[in-house]
Amino acid sequence: MAGKTVTNGAAQGKAARSGADGAVRGKAGMGRVDLIGAGPGDPELLTLRALRLLQQADVVVHDRLVSDEVMACIPAHVRRIPVGKAAGFHPVPQEQINALLVELGLSGLTVARLKGGDPTIFGRGGEEFEAVTRAGIPCDYVPGITAAQGAAVSARFPLTHRGLATGLRHVTGHRARDAALDLDWASLADPQTTLAIYMGAANMAEIARELIRHGMPADLPVLAVSQASTPQEQRLHATLQDIAAALARKPLPAPVLFIVGHVAAMAEDCALPQELYRPEWRLVAHG
Amino acid sequence: MAGKTVTNGAAQGKAARSGADGAVRGKAGMGRVDLIGAGPGDPELLTLRALRLLQQADVVVHDRLVSDEVMACIPAHVRRIPVGKAAGFHPVPQEQINALLVELGLSGLTVARLKGGDPTIFGRGGEEFEAVTRAGIPCDYVPGITAAQGAAVSARFPLTHRGLATGLRHVTGHRARDAALDLDWASLADPQTTLAIYMGAANMAEIARELIRHGMPADLPVLAVSQASTPQEQRLHATLQDIAAALARKPLPAPVLFIVGHVAAMAEDCALPQELYRPEWRLVAHG
Repeated sequence: MAGKTVTNGAAQGKAARSGADGAVRGKAGMGRVDLIGAGPGDPELLTLRALRLLQQADVVVHDRLVSDEVMACIPAHVRRIPVGKAAGFHPVPQEQINALLVELGLSGLTVARLKGGDPTIFGRGGEEFEAVTRAGIPCDYVPGITAAQGAAVSARFPLTHRGLATGLRHVTGHRARDAALDLDWASLADPQTTLAIYMGAANMAEIARELIRHGMPADLPVLAVSQASTPQEQRLHATLQDIAAALARKPLPAPVLFIVGHVAAMAEDCALPQELYRPEWRLVAHG
Repeated sequence: MAGKTVTNGAAQGKAARSGADGAVRGKAGMGRVDLIGAGPGDPELLTLRALRLLQQADVVVHDRLVSDEVMACIPAHVRRIPVGKAAGFHPVPQEQINALLVELGLSGLTVARLKGGDPTIFGRGGEEFEAVTRAGIPCDYVPGITAAQGAAVSARFPLTHRGLATGLRHVTGHRARDAALDLDWASLADPQTTLAIYMGAANMAEIARELIRHGMPADLPVLAVSQASTPQEQRLHATLQDIAAALARKPLPAPVLFIVGHVAAMAEDCALPQELYRPEWRLVAHG
C-alpha cells in the first residue's frame, strides 16, 4: 500500500480553529462538542485551549472526579451536568453519556465534555467522539496533562531518565467484573520501562505478584499517588513486593495512580535506599 | 520496608507555588530554574503555568525545535538562548546546557528552560534537574502535552480505544552512534498497545522489521507525523511493512513521530482498509 501524505495547511487549520471557536457550525442550528482534558487536578495545568473552551461553553458535561479547582474555572452561568464515577453515586452508563452529548450537540449548544487527564488516553473518549461525529456534530479532542505527568511534576522526578528508564508505558489495572486481569505480563515486566498503572488499586497485590513472577525485581520502587498536583495530594512509597500491604495499611483516596520503576526512587520524598540506583541497570546513553 | 505516606498539604503546596512565582528564593541573590514543557508546537496547547512562567522569566534557554508560535509567547524584552539540536547547527552538549542553567540560576536570574513536549519524558530533563538542584538552585518541572497527544488531537483519533488498544507506550527509536538499537522487541511487539516512537526516522526500517519478526502484524497501521499541531504539520499513513519505504519516497521534516497500532487507522485522513479493525482483536471492555 502506498503511503499517503496530508498537509495540515493554513486552510485546514483555520477551519478547525474556527470550529473550535464555535464561529463556524456544522449545520444551521447545530452545536459542537469538545472532548477536553481536565489534566490531573491543578487548574494551572489546564492548556490554554481547554480554559478558553470552558469559558465559551454553553454546558459542561463533566466527570465527577474533576477537581473543584478546575471546576471553578467554568463561568458561573454555565450549566454543569455531572456524569461518571464517584463514591456514593451510580455512574452514568457510557451509552447514556454518548446519547446526552449527541442530544446537547443537536440542540445547537456548544458542549464542553470535561474528562480527567487526557481524553485520548483511557476514559473512553474515543467512543464519545465516534457517537458525536456519527450524529454529524463537529467534535474535537483537546489534550490534557496525564496523571502520570502530574505525579512526576509534583514529586519532582522524571518519567524517563538516562540509565534508569528508556520509556514510559500507560496501562490500566482494573478488570471487567470478575474476569482475569487482561495484561500481557511478559511484555509488562521490563524494568527499563516506567509503568504508569491507572485504576489498579483493587488489584495491586495480583499485579505486583505477576510482575515479580515475570522477572521484575521485587525491590523495584513504586510510588502510589492520589490526587496528584492538588492540595489533597497524598503519596506512598514502597517496593513492588511491599506496595499492596503498604496500601492496605494506609489506603489512599481513589483514584490511585501507581508509578512502577527505578525513577520512582528519584521522587523528592522517597526514603528507599539509594542502592536501588543499581549500576548494572545503567545503560548506554539515551536521550 | 514500610510504606511512607506524605501529604502534600497546604504549607508544602504554598511553598512550591511561591517558589514557582519567584517570590521566595532559595538563598539571597539566587535565582531559579523551571524545566518547562513547550508541548507539540501549537501555543494554545501550553499549560497556563508554562505561559505564566515564560512571561515572568528573565531568560529563556530553549531547544531550537520549539515552534515559532510558542517562542512568540515570550515577551520581547526577555533574553533567549538557543541550545539543542537543529539542522545545520552543532548541538550544545548536554553538560554545557547543564552548566549554563547552573550559571544563570546562581547569578540570580529566573530561568525558563523551554523543552519540546514534556520535560519529564525523554529530552534529558532529569539530568538538567539534577545538575541545577545539586547546585542548590530551586527547580521545578512544568509539564507539557506530548507529541503523541498532539498528533492524536490534530488527526482526531484516540491513543487507546476499546477493543483496539488497552495501553500506550512511549519509546525512542534512535541509537547511540553505531550501537545496536537497544529495544526489547519481544516486549514491544504487543499489537494491543499503541506505540509512540520518538526519534526513530533513521531506523524505522529496522524497527518495523524487528517488530514484525517478533509478532506484530505486517499490516498494522502506522501514522508518521511531523510538527504535529502546527500549521506545518504533515502526516503519512502506511502499514508497518510499508512505512520505511513510504517515508523514503516522501521524507517528512524532522523530527518525525510514529504512532504504531490499530488506533492509527482511526485518524481522520487514513485511507487504510477498514478491515484493519479486525474483530478478533476486539477485547473485553476496558475503560
